[in-house]
Amino acid sequence: MTAEQTRHRRNLKTVNRALASGTFSEVRQVLNNLPGAEAAHLIESSPPREREILWQLLNQEQETEVLQYLGEEVRVELLRDLPTEELVELIEDLDTDDLADLLQELPEQVTSRVLAGLDAQNRERLEQVMNYPEDTAGGLMNTDVITVRPEITFSVVQRYLRRLGDIPKTTDNLLVVNRKNQFVGVLPLTRVLISDPGTSVREAMITDVEAIPATQDAHEVAKLFERLDLVTAPVVDDNGMLVGRITIDDVVDVIMEEAEHSLMGMAGLDEDEDTFGSVWHTVRRRALWLGINLLTALAASAVISLFEDTLEKVVALAVLMPIVASMGGIAGSQTLTLVIRAMALGQVQAGNTRYLLTKELAVGALNGLLWALVIGATAALWFDDPSLGVIIGCAMILNLVVAAGAGALIPMVMKRMGIDPALAGSVVLTTVTDIVGFMAFLGLATLLYANLVV
Amino acid sequence: MTAEQTRHRRNLKTVNRALASGTFSEVRQVLNNLPGAEAAHLIESSPPREREILWQLLNQEQETEVLQYLGEEVRVELLRDLPTEELVELIEDLDTDDLADLLQELPEQVTSRVLAGLDAQNRERLEQVMNYPEDTAGGLMNTDVITVRPEITFSVVQRYLRRLGDIPKTTDNLLVVNRKNQFVGVLPLTRVLISDPGTSVREAMITDVEAIPATQDAHEVAKLFERLDLVTAPVVDDNGMLVGRITIDDVVDVIMEEAEHSLMGMAGLDEDEDTFGSVWHTVRRRALWLGINLLTALAASAVISLFEDTLEKVVALAVLMPIVASMGGIAGSQTLTLVIRAMALGQVQAGNTRYLLTKELAVGALNGLLWALVIGATAALWFDDPSLGVIIGCAMILNLVVAAGAGALIPMVMKRMGIDPALAGSVVLTTVTDIVGFMAFLGLATLLYANLVV
Repeated sequence: MTAEQTRHRRNLKTVNRALASGTFSEVRQVLNNLPGAEAAHLIESSPPREREILWQLLNQEQETEVLQYLGEEVRVELLRDLPTEELVELIEDLDTDDLADLLQELPEQVTSRVLAGLDAQNRERLEQVMNYPEDTAGGLMNTDVITVRPEITFSVVQRYLRRLGDIPKTTDNLLVVNRKNQFVGVLPLTRVLISDPGTSVREAMITDVEAIPATQDAHEVAKLFERLDLVTAPVVDDNGMLVGRITIDDVVDVIMEEAEHSLMGMAGLDEDEDTFGSVWHTVRRRALWLGINLLTALAASAVISLFEDTLEKVVALAVLMPIVASMGGIAGSQTLTLVIRAMALGQVQAGNTRYLLTKELAVGALNGLLWALVIGATAALWFDDPSLGVIIGCAMILNLVVAAGAGALIPMVMKRMGIDPALAGSVVLTTVTDIVGFMAFLGLATLLYANLVV
Repeated sequence: MTAEQTRHRRNLKTVNRALASGTFSEVRQVLNNLPGAEAAHLIESSPPREREILWQLLNQEQETEVLQYLGEEVRVELLRDLPTEELVELIEDLDTDDLADLLQELPEQVTSRVLAGLDAQNRERLEQVMNYPEDTAGGLMNTDVITVRPEITFSVVQRYLRRLGDIPKTTDNLLVVNRKNQFVGVLPLTRVLISDPGTSVREAMITDVEAIPATQDAHEVAKLFERLDLVTAPVVDDNGMLVGRITIDDVVDVIMEEAEHSLMGMAGLDEDEDTFGSVWHTVRRRALWLGINLLTALAASAVISLFEDTLEKVVALAVLMPIVASMGGIAGSQTLTLVIRAMALGQVQAGNTRYLLTKELAVGALNGLLWALVIGATAALWFDDPSLGVIIGCAMILNLVVAAGAGALIPMVMKRMGIDPALAGSVVLTTVTDIVGFMAFLGLATLLYANLVV
């Protein structure tokens, strides 16, 4: 266990014990002396009722600090009932992009009152960020840029920076703009440090940097940061005007959210799902997904019911039939997961789709053959019936090939239809593999046993 | 579609067409004029045989560039057969941490020859990084630190930096060490820029920065970076000696790898799984997972076979039995996914395990009740048999509660046993939900129908 984990566990214990015994003063002391990130972590790891109490125990300075590190859902939950005045005081020090995200989740009358409560400069900046959807470069950006003109010298730059006094966190570059505020290049701070004070910005700036359009998708922004190892990047509007900058910490959040979205989506969960949220809230969120699954399971049952006569005669079929469906589901979800990841990485293109599909079908066929032999032999020996072995073997190969094809095609088709494959892909896939699995196995059995009997 | 995607697609098309028609000169021109990251992306999006050809067409300068951006598996595949001399020339410009990772994957005699081919300073740095496992802070770190002593003034610092000339990429802080090379604090470059040249390092440095122990787990490092919005962090050995620094771009790689590990692991895939790898390679990798699943499916079949007599009498049971098992699997995997994520975020601790378990059991019971009513009514009407509705309803509630408990407890128990729940959790879970599902449904039916008949 790391030092950090040990500390977190100890804090959680102290807080739990103190809350249970009602000695709030101890909790207040612990909470307000923790770094903001750790106090936020502690609040998120507590059940809803305790969260409220812990939040009440924070002093105002710590509240602002903690707020920055709380997850979206928890943040909204804690802030919803605050009086507007208190809310404004609390949140006006947040980064512009965080503030914009937060306001978009609060009720509209609260948002407008908060906007009215801000000073002119902050309001203008905030409105600029709020102009863009949350999942675009414009929604991610901050407006705390330091700009310089190309014609000035480094000694002027350095004097200007000294006068400013406060350089925003994570500033690696100054941004160079022309008289119209159009972005022309970046000037790394390290160049200012190591170059002759007489150098002009124009001589030293880097111009082959692509500014990010404010409307660009957050996912693309993250890929760009990852591929070019960026720390910050300038953001421009349609006219090339500099409107802000994106910093790596916000990109890391995007990457983590996307990863959670894929992972949680596969289980029909929202990436914001609150682990310690209330039971009622959770039941409602998950019921829908279970309901959809019930419908698909009923569809599979309908397929089975077509073969009631055969099942009545050969009860071994009922014993073995879940195997074919289950193997198809597993093989298909391997392909599905792989293709969804490859699509997210931008690797799947018109030029290689055919290769990918062929490869997956071949893999499905070969693995189908392998496990068909194993299950065929097992079934034949178990029920002392060679034809049963042949039937389940053939059904297995067929279902694994179909599973591979479905696993590869479903996400591609869904993407073209504008449906998120990470969310809906696995339901559609298992519906296909269940139906094909039962149909192939029971259908083949019906054909074969009918012939044997006649 | 973004400009970048359009460009990638166009390039891929050009390359595919040219490769097909054998006009390599055109491909060579396209490849060597692309930014390294894009050329690497293009190579990774191609089938194995084309990859070899594309790699051959790169000129040496571009090869070095591209190498940095290739995924691990593809990189090793392309480098394995190179003569050592060429290899050394190619890789000596890589970052120390990338080089260390790469060497650990190549055959040992290649590694030692490469080490022998490096100059003394590079070899020493490399060996230092290779001392630590790849997934620790030491394995992630680079050795390109700029250190200063506390007693010097900013004008000396600035003169020193000018003499160095080249400040490594992503340098936001200078690292302050004492005479024994022990880490004492960081000095942000921005402070050097804006402060009076007479200021001493000691006055301006930040000392409440925790250095990361070289043995710390990469996952913990990533959490620290994310929580504190770091760009770089110093790494120290057991004696507090500064041994290197970690930069955010390597942390982003860790975060992405972990995310892929969770996602791919759920489907029994390795996070390095090569989307366009060869069929044979892929078949072998996936066969094991399917084999494990076949065993668990056979276990479920064994349970069903206990009730052959009942199934023979009431064939409707065979039609409905997959529903109970399937709903349990879905509900359980929702809980499993949630708990695995919460554990990865460090939210699950001794203090809140009981709350989490109780909450999930309650959610399982409520959703079980809801869908038991729906499926009970459906089954009773479908087969015109009210007792069948009661049986499937009770089995559903039971299986959903068991699924919630299993989904919450399996990852916790596995973690304690040192097994990765992201990899093995879902297999164990579905085995439990299948067996309990079939057992509950068919067992209840056997009891009830036996009583009715007698």
